[in-house]
Amino acid sequence: MGKEKKSEIERLNQDELKKILKETRQKLASQQQLIKEKKLPVIVLIEGWSAAGKGTLISYLIRDLDPRFFQVVPMKAPTEEELRKPFLCRHMEKIPETGKFSFLDSGWIEETVFDAVDGRLNEKELQHRLDEINVFERQLVDNGYLVLKIFVHVTEEEQRARIKRLSSDKDTQWRVNTRDLDELKHRKKYAKIFDRCISETNSQKAPWHVVDGMQKTVIELQVCKLLIEGIESAIARNQMPAEIPVNTFPMKKMPKLAEVDLNKSVTREEYEAELKLAQKKLKKLHNKLYRKGIPVIIAYEGWDAAGKGGNIKRMTSALDARGFTVHPIASPDSYEKNRMFLWRFWKRLPKTGHIAIFDRTWYGRVMVERLEGFCSENDWQRAFNEMNEFEKQLSDWGAVVIKFWIHIDKETQLERFNERQNTPEKRWKITEEDWRNREKWDLYELAVDEMIEKTSTEYAPWHIISSNDKLYARLQTIRIVIDAIEKAL
Amino acid sequence: MGKEKKSEIERLNQDELKKILKETRQKLASQQQLIKEKKLPVIVLIEGWSAAGKGTLISYLIRDLDPRFFQVVPMKAPTEEELRKPFLCRHMEKIPETGKFSFLDSGWIEETVFDAVDGRLNEKELQHRLDEINVFERQLVDNGYLVLKIFVHVTEEEQRARIKRLSSDKDTQWRVNTRDLDELKHRKKYAKIFDRCISETNSQKAPWHVVDGMQKTVIELQVCKLLIEGIESAIARNQMPAEIPVNTFPMKKMPKLAEVDLNKSVTREEYEAELKLAQKKLKKLHNKLYRKGIPVIIAYEGWDAAGKGGNIKRMTSALDARGFTVHPIASPDSYEKNRMFLWRFWKRLPKTGHIAIFDRTWYGRVMVERLEGFCSENDWQRAFNEMNEFEKQLSDWGAVVIKFWIHIDKETQLERFNERQNTPEKRWKITEEDWRNREKWDLYELAVDEMIEKTSTEYAPWHIISSNDKLYARLQTIRIVIDAIEKAL
Repeated sequence: MGKEKKSEIERLNQDELKKILKETRQKLASQQQLIKEKKLPVIVLIEGWSAAGKGTLISYLIRDLDPRFFQVVPMKAPTEEELRKPFLCRHMEKIPETGKFSFLDSGWIEETVFDAVDGRLNEKELQHRLDEINVFERQLVDNGYLVLKIFVHVTEEEQRARIKRLSSDKDTQWRVNTRDLDELKHRKKYAKIFDRCISETNSQKAPWHVVDGMQKTVIELQVCKLLIEGIESAIARNQMPAEIPVNTFPMKKMPKLAEVDLNKSVTREEYEAELKLAQKKLKKLHNKLYRKGIPVIIAYEGWDAAGKGGNIKRMTSALDARGFTVHPIASPDSYEKNRMFLWRFWKRLPKTGHIAIFDRTWYGRVMVERLEGFCSENDWQRAFNEMNEFEKQLSDWGAVVIKFWIHIDKETQLERFNERQNTPEKRWKITEEDWRNREKWDLYELAVDEMIEKTSTEYAPWHIISSNDKLYARLQTIRIVIDAIEKAL
Repeated sequence: MGKEKKSEIERLNQDELKKILKETRQKLASQQQLIKEKKLPVIVLIEGWSAAGKGTLISYLIRDLDPRFFQVVPMKAPTEEELRKPFLCRHMEKIPETGKFSFLDSGWIEETVFDAVDGRLNEKELQHRLDEINVFERQLVDNGYLVLKIFVHVTEEEQRARIKRLSSDKDTQWRVNTRDLDELKHRKKYAKIFDRCISETNSQKAPWHVVDGMQKTVIELQVCKLLIEGIESAIARNQMPAEIPVNTFPMKKMPKLAEVDLNKSVTREEYEAELKLAQKKLKKLHNKLYRKGIPVIIAYEGWDAAGKGGNIKRMTSALDARGFTVHPIASPDSYEKNRMFLWRFWKRLPKTGHIAIFDRTWYGRVMVERLEGFCSENDWQRAFNEMNEFEKQLSDWGAVVIKFWIHIDKETQLERFNERQNTPEKRWKITEEDWRNREKWDLYELAVDEMIEKTSTEYAPWHIISSNDKLYARLQTIRIVIDAIEKAL
């Protein structure tokens, strides 16, 4: 694994090495401009034994870089808040923007190894964790990231000597913590799990490079070269469309939009009576959810003027305001657009016991972004699988994932648009863009049919809600939410 | 304090009350559109005794609001990370964007009371905390916020009865925590501190409204009306320029830019020898800072092409990458622009023991924003004091605050611009905007002179760095940083 350059470097004498070292680092610095221009985001994950010199290595790599275009992220034990989110969440949050480096001073591998050693993961959970990491890394690479993974190895004797040296100097002893000592004491146990994690996440798109940390200059040169090569090959790779994975998730058979019965309705009396009871019930369930720590994610999509806003309002007015958040999703801000498209949704996930309602969602990728050309064809074609994987991770985490397509027909939309246009208090709700989108109804319908077909997994199916009668739609969504939560409790 | 409406409301019978209640809530809902249009951000801080019904009150207030335009923020004990930031930081982070509501289910008052009761604040610290809260609230109001503060009062008997009721029902007993019980047990002690906090933060711009929580409907109506009136008067108030406070901070006498000697220089040999030693020293100091938990904030401003980037690079290459962050400050993203202008800097403050370097800063307010008309005259005139207050809070927190103006003359800038223009690898560094800014050199010089005069406080003075010779400038900044850190240690 990436040891091929070692012998060549080791043949150099110290002066030759220093010269090459300086040249190589300057070469890396000059690539900073290249990654900016090519909009390449670069993740450098440095894992390794404690006292192997990860920090020193990073300090070397960044020395000539422009500090505005990189960040160094030291690994920390997860906070209580982070422990109430999916494992990958806090790692996903740290990914860089296009044109920037993130140097991670250990990350998801170390956390996994510690969790396994400490007994917080059983065999099955460990396997699942590694599978998720593979999905995470592959998605990043497919979305244009360079993910360079380095493991800094030192022998047990060397590690012991270094820790001893650090501990015996009062200026450095604070750097040695109980985990470092534990790692040394149970080195075999740690080694076994590190080995397994590395071999099982050693994918073609994000391979591991195990480097020997014995000699500082050697490792610096090696990693610097790996980074330079990695950048060049990532730029070349990004010119080619990534492969579209074949769907492997269990799917639910769904109707086309044209086949959906839009004539369903209720009387206002039926509506008010049932809504009141349903809201009461939902309120109680919310309470139970909270206590059981089950997160709920409700995704709303639908035609303009289909009644999403009013529908959401009836849902939330039943809920304790401290336990839910509504996320209106507009076009991404620049700092969001410059990251993997799911990033801004990972950032908005609920904590355990909380409900997150998305008013428009990650499915924008295969609707507006597809139809307006805001992403490449390869991007949106890959997205079906990426979204299925995302929701699978949420569902495996224990979340209830509910997706609504709020459906109306074209005539109903026209009526509502006209009503908005002609009612002064409602006019703000209608924009030129709504009228333009309406002209593309048929294209959208095809895109939505494809989306519903390809992303109605068994664990996170779409529910198409007839909303020509908004009252009927409101009852229907609240019934589905109640039903899904009851099943989860 | 705000009790004037009580008697009038109490004269109503239940049916009249319910009718008025519904109408009032709907009136509030219709104001949602108004606050959006007038770009009014609204903070509703609900403090009060535990079990007084704060959560229920918020649920009532939001019932008819559009969930996309408000957030409810429940108070939580600060995390370890938050405890390593200034007290106000986490409260500042929660302020809403223009056109939106934040309902805070208790906030900075409760936290202060708990800190005082638990003995984490002595008398002097408590007083200081309250002074800071007053500054915080006044700044928000001056920057266009409505800050509506409600204290929900219930008698000791009522509180006892409610807590007993909650505890005896297994569906609600989880809501009663040890703090609630402690509050009841030592009610007098809590009452004394609540009283003090409320009376000392009862400012004209953000007055307290103490409401009686005995009767749910009465309090709902009262607070709803307060909110409606508050919105109307805040909109009226925002039409008028806010008062510019007189400076009360101790100032350092500073020269005008034109008086600065720009002929200082060093040879490359002197530079390299001193830089190496200085970097070594800084590295050691960084280590000590970290262990002592002292935060450092280094602010860089200066002319285009003055050499900020290279200067910062020499500073950071001496530092442990895990302990500093460089924040390049460009024009604000929309979610930043829609909040109080210091918000995005509060969000980027370092933790204790860390160094934050700002490449351009909050002083953009009195330079580019002033000269390009991105803020009103009242905004930038008020900003001198607001920035002095901000830095005072940082300094009182224990931070070392260092501000650099990297200075060159107009001819040197022209040479460097031309060099950038004529060197292919450097051409990306120069833009049309740089040339346009250069045309406004004289206006900028006046603005910078005023800025340096008005914001060189003794606790956070400006350092004007001669940078016609970049090498000299680099030594100079690193010397100043070393000196400031040594003084702080």
